Amino acid sequence: LKIFSLNSNRPLAEKIAKRVGVPLGKASVSRFSDGEIQINIEESIRGDNVYIIQSTSDPVNDNLMELLIMIDALRRASAKTINVVIPYYGYARQDRKARSREPITAKLVADMLEKDGITRLVALDLHAAQIQGFFDVPVDHLMGAPLLAEYFIKNGLAKDAVVVSPDHGGVSRARAMAEFLKAPIAIIDKRRPKANVAQIMNIIGDVKGKRCIMIDDMIDTAGTITKGAQALMDAGASEVYACCTHPVLSGPATERIEASPIKKLVVTDSIQLPDYKKIDKIKQISVAPLIGDAI
Amino acid sequence: LKIFSLNSNRPLAEKIAKRVGVPLGKASVSRFSDGEIQINIEESIRGDNVYIIQSTSDPVNDNLMELLIMIDALRRASAKTINVVIPYYGYARQDRKARSREPITAKLVADMLEKDGITRLVALDLHAAQIQGFFDVPVDHLMGAPLLAEYFIKNGLAKDAVVVSPDHGGVSRARAMAEFLKAPIAIIDKRRPKANVAQIMNIIGDVKGKRCIMIDDMIDTAGTITKGAQALMDAGASEVYACCTHPVLSGPATERIEASPIKKLVVTDSIQLPDYKKIDKIKQISVAPLIGDAI
Ligand SMILES: Nc1ncnc2c1ncn2[C@@H]1O[C@H](COP(=O)(O)O)[C@@H](O)[C@H]1O
Ligand SMILES: Nc1ncnc2c1ncn2[C@@H]1O[C@H](COP(=O)(O)O)[C@@H](O)[C@H]1O
Repeated sequence: LKIFSLNSNRPLAEKIAKRVGVPLGKASVSRFSDGEIQINIEESIRGDNVYIIQSTSDPVNDNLMELLIMIDALRRASAKTINVVIPYYGYARQDRKARSREPITAKLVADMLEKDGITRLVALDLHAAQIQGFFDVPVDHLMGAPLLAEYFIKNGLAKDAVVVSPDHGGVSRARAMAEFLKAPIAIIDKRRPKANVAQIMNIIGDVKGKRCIMIDDMIDTAGTITKGAQALMDAGASEVYACCTHPVLSGPATERIEASPIKKLVVTDSIQLPDYKKIDKIKQISVAPLIGDAI
Repeated sequence: LKIFSLNSNRPLAEKIAKRVGVPLGKASVSRFSDGEIQINIEESIRGDNVYIIQSTSDPVNDNLMELLIMIDALRRASAKTINVVIPYYGYARQDRKARSREPITAKLVADMLEKDGITRLVALDLHAAQIQGFFDVPVDHLMGAPLLAEYFIKNGLAKDAVVVSPDHGGVSRARAMAEFLKAPIAIIDKRRPKANVAQIMNIIGDVKGKRCIMIDDMIDTAGTITKGAQALMDAGASEVYACCTHPVLSGPATERIEASPIKKLVVTDSIQLPDYKKIDKIKQISVAPLIGDAI
């Protein structure tokens, strides 16, 4: 068994390798002068069961191509199996035709990976569970919710809490979390006029005087979650926490979170955060044990 | 027949559309906040023969993903045929395993395009003609040499000229050019210690007192061509011109050309040059007529 890291999330890959108890495989992934990806695998992998750890987070196209090229190199070097671990699966929101003539990029990515010869996929909180069906190879679909729940339980925050879904699409996720926390749920009923812009409507459920714990699979520009937090405070919540598996945190996200009534945002390390996004309000919990045990 | 441009080389796409006599199709190719590509095709293409113009030049991964996502969207929107025009085919130098455990990225790209459902490929001066065989769909392989030769003939520079191949790998290309110019050939016999670094050895053929016209398929960091030019001057050439189809011009390329004895570098517009690379010494000739006539 050999584990290779590409460039998107080396700290997580190191933690996973440590958990599994093997050193990371020797490979360098760099760039030629013109920006093309150059991969050198520096040890034999003939006949090995190989794992590649790579999130297709921003820069998504570069990270995806690193992954595809690495798979090509491993396959041609006679790896026995090629197991791909994608803690954050980019392009997952483009998973259906919402309008005419839209691409379904999440399926395109699946097709590319399959054509490239992967044996198995390990994924974490896919934006839609249906993405599993985009693959014909086995998919292990891991869940971040128990890890996130553990944080709230350990810190005594589960008592008197209400788990809040920031939109009606996330109710099942909130339901699962509420199960772990033994808490009731509430839903924010919002309308989103266009992509990356969210508008909050009204709150379904009882939040008055309660600690609200919002949950989503990913937080991107943080418009939904921060406006939701404000709406909860306006509705009389005593305090608001938030959590998600994937801290995409693009554009104005960190400033919005900083300025919001959210006391703490609990996320995983499925996406590596640059230092300027590691603000005090954001607590990162590692998914390395979860992934390590699935390997 | 509909022609769509993506973002790598819109000026060329406009010229091609003009040559063919149709307006460019309406589509916007932009980015979501997190860097993921968003494509909107703004007119029906159901049942149409569609052409996409896209060079996979730097930023190669972004340009390639734009192309793959556009093909996905067109296929799902019931295009009759999807014809892909790639004036500059990126990753073409990674076309074989030169060392153990190397990827063959040029084949990976071909597989992705085929899996995505293209009907036909139009390419220009592929780094190796063998890349045609990486595809099962028909490939039209166009040649820039006649266009480049025309420049030298029209400007009275073909007389007394020697066509020089900058390395032994490019002799056939030089031979073809020499045919057009009715000139003899010479070869620079060099050794390259590592990628992007070139070292000139000695000159095979007679260049003394002659106008040398160096030809290559692409010029990347311009190490080979500028050191070659100096070696030709040292060997008594009266003057040195250079030409290539693909002006990759990465890293120190433009400064090297500026500082070299090369009088003029004639290139095509297969790759769009940013303004700071449009130096006086570089003359760009459009391949739009060539491509337009192949459509
Ligand atoms: N990277 C992205 N950033 C923002 N919106 C996106 C992104 N990718 C896809 N979308 C859009 O988000 C919507 C799907 O999101 P959802 O309803 O949360 O599944 C679709 O309208 C997509 O076009
Ligand atoms: N983008 C690139 N820039 C520089 N060298 C490359 C690039 N892609 C591949 N190569 C290397 O260039 C060599 C092939 O170039 P050539 O001998 O001109 O076909 C191989 O050793 C490749 O590993």
